[in-house]
Parts: sequence; structure tokens; C-alpha cells
Amino acid sequence: MYDPQPFHLDEDAALASVFQSLTASGVHTIAVENKMFHLDDGPRFVALAQLAMTDISFPSPVRAGDRLRIEVICLSLRESKSKPDRGVVEQQCKLLNQYGDECFRCTHTILVPKRAA
Amino acid sequence: MYDPQPFHLDEDAALASVFQSLTASGVHTIAVENKMFHLDDGPRFVALAQLAMTDISFPSPVRAGDRLRIEVICLSLRESKSKPDRGVVEQQCKLLNQYGDECFRCTHTILVPKRAA
Repeated sequence: MYDPQPFHLDEDAALASVFQSLTASGVHTIAVENKMFHLDDGPRFVALAQLAMTDISFPSPVRAGDRLRIEVICLSLRESKSKPDRGVVEQQCKLLNQYGDECFRCTHTILVPKRAA
Repeated sequence: MYDPQPFHLDEDAALASVFQSLTASGVHTIAVENKMFHLDDGPRFVALAQLAMTDISFPSPVRAGDRLRIEVICLSLRESKSKPDRGVVEQQCKLLNQYGDECFRCTHTILVPKRAA
């Protein structure tokens, strides 16, 4: 188990925690977001590598039974300085629950192939 | 599977990738780091919640068979502004492989209980 903290797994420990109910660990939320990000954007670009994830925050907890949706905003797009056939895309992603509360936010910096001219 | 990209799972796709061998996905590396972080630091503090992870980067790939170790640096420690019985710790973590190459870096912002006076 990648997150050995009882309040993410045990209902009694969760009740006694600052969240007062079972919540997803941050890593769990990141994994879900990553899958939604790749599936949602799969047809639009092929990632060669993820260079960085910045400004990750968890403004609201993800609780058991929540339904999440992803919003993706392209922040920037530039050519690679060292490789003429590659580019670098920055995308901000947010996860929102069924009430519209923002549960997760981060910025992905992704290495992508350039389109043939 | 949280990372549906073939070059993390398939040897032929990995050979054709920019990495030229199987590598861990970023989420996989984050999960491993999270476990090492909590186990390594478990006796030293109890996390109430993770408020943020910032400045995540992947300077070198994690390859199949690599052995990773963690380095943790405490960057700051302050009292919570809203809750007098809690504090906020910022810790920078690095994962290094068997050659000493830095594979992962991030800063965790963690809500912790204050010691009784």
C-alpha cells in the first residue's frame, strides 16, 4: 500500500480524523487524475514524457462515493530548445466533484512530438 | 491502470520511446516516494492531511530494477493561522537511484498536530 495512513482505509480512524469520513489519499487522487488526463487527451496528443507536475493542491477532500470530472486548460506551448522535432506543452488540470467543489489542481509539463510540417 | 501509456508497460514500445527502456510512470514514482516518505518519517510526525505537493520534477527516469533511496529536508515549520493546536511543515524529498542520479523531487506541505506544551 502506497499510503500507510489508517485514516484513508479504516472508517473509525477516518471518523476521528480532521476529515471526519473516509477520504482518498493524495496519491490516489493523483493516479485517478492522471488516468482521466491521458484518456481525455489521448486523441489530441501523444505524450513522450512528463517533465514536471507543478502547483499540486488538494483544496477539498475526495470522499468515498464522489463522482469526479476533469477540466483541462492549455497554458502554453513551445518548441523544444534542444530537439527540433519536439515541443513542450503546459496544461492545468482540475478535478471537480458532483457539487462543483475543486478537489485537485495541478499543472503538467509534457514533452510531445511536433507535427510534420 | 492509472497510466495507460504503452511505453511504461510494453518492452517494444519502451525501446521505441525517448527512454529506450522500460521506465516507471510519474504516478508510480510518486506512489513509491509517498510510501517511503511516510515510513521513513512515521515515527517523527503524524500527518493530519497533505495540503499540497509543489515543484514535482523527474530529472532522470526510474528504470526497471533501479534501487531508490529517499532524502528528506525540512524546509519550514509554522503554526496554523486558524487552528492553535496544529502546525504546517514543508519538507523537500528527493529520490536517488543506485548511481546517485536524482530521479524525483518534490515539496510536501503537511498539516500536523502540535505537541502539548
